Amino acid sequence: MTTNWPDILVELPPWTEEVVRRHPGPLDDTAAMGLAIALARAVMERGEGGPFGAVVVDAAGTLVAPGMNRVLGSGQSWAHAEMVALAVAQRRSGTHDLATAPGAPLTLVTSGEPCAMCLGAIPWSGVGRVVAGAREADIVAIGFDEGDKPAKGLEGLSRRGIEVRRDVGRAEAIRLLADYAAAGGLLY
Amino acid sequence: MTTNWPDILVELPPWTEEVVRRHPGPLDDTAAMGLAIALARAVMERGEGGPFGAVVVDAAGTLVAPGMNRVLGSGQSWAHAEMVALAVAQRRSGTHDLATAPGAPLTLVTSGEPCAMCLGAIPWSGVGRVVAGAREADIVAIGFDEGDKPAKGLEGLSRRGIEVRRDVGRAEAIRLLADYAAAGGLLY
Repeated sequence: MTTNWPDILVELPPWTEEVVRRHPGPLDDTAAMGLAIALARAVMERGEGGPFGAVVVDAAGTLVAPGMNRVLGSGQSWAHAEMVALAVAQRRSGTHDLATAPGAPLTLVTSGEPCAMCLGAIPWSGVGRVVAGAREADIVAIGFDEGDKPAKGLEGLSRRGIEVRRDVGRAEAIRLLADYAAAGGLLY
Repeated sequence: MTTNWPDILVELPPWTEEVVRRHPGPLDDTAAMGLAIALARAVMERGEGGPFGAVVVDAAGTLVAPGMNRVLGSGQSWAHAEMVALAVAQRRSGTHDLATAPGAPLTLVTSGEPCAMCLGAIPWSGVGRVVAGAREADIVAIGFDEGDKPAKGLEGLSRRGIEVRRDVGRAEAIRLLADYAAAGGLLY
């Protein structure tokens, strides 16, 4: 702490590496989604928050950063899985613009379609591709709020030169959401 | 660091307290905007990034958190002034939901209308009011990208029970943006 004000700090949970190790690379879109969903399931099973996971991989399929919902874990409302994965990727790459990172273009792979905040964050991050599992409707169906998005939603990113691929691993992502709902998971 | 992965860390700059001290509370909307603009100007004058500042104040006008653009300062693309102020407020309050913080309802005061990401983040933060200085059009006019927002923009927050007040200190906020543009400030 360099001032009278607290630093903003979000740590990945100690179990992160254990989950990552079970998903050796290189990771294609489907394998990367498998890891994103495994991270989401780990959050859920430990009661640490909503069932959302994400990863950033480089053009060769090498894992750059894992991410998972850390809202309850860190006490920070912005710490959604996508934001965490992008931020860790930027810390590792040493730049706020992942378009200039080693191994670019980078891909953000997320277990569910990003909420309004995360969608707004994606163009600023410098990723070149986004891959999503569960659709917005799947997430809203179990009671989560995705926020107010621009009319074109996720597809609107393509106008900014960001490639969008949807429905990768969607069935498994929906199963995860259903398990969370069935367990009476907290909605916040 | 508790894992093999780097923590997400954003520190306020060492000059923060010096600027804050010149704006003693209690801060009404106009005084809080004066501090937000002073923080923005400090970032600009030190060449540390875009001219954007924000503060969170409680219902009595006590400063809960200052914030300023830390994208270049931290290497994190999400570290916009509003995000930083909200995150520091949550760190100080010990909760991800500022609606339950001491002194609630809290107000986010920002030198310019929030971009798409920050707009999406506001409902998740638990603030009860948002006060903005420069309008989106003022910011876009000097070349910054505000992102793709939902149709109702900032006003849409009122449908979620968040009070919105615009144009507070707008003339001074516009002067700040004009000074940045005149100095050939980096757009990113």
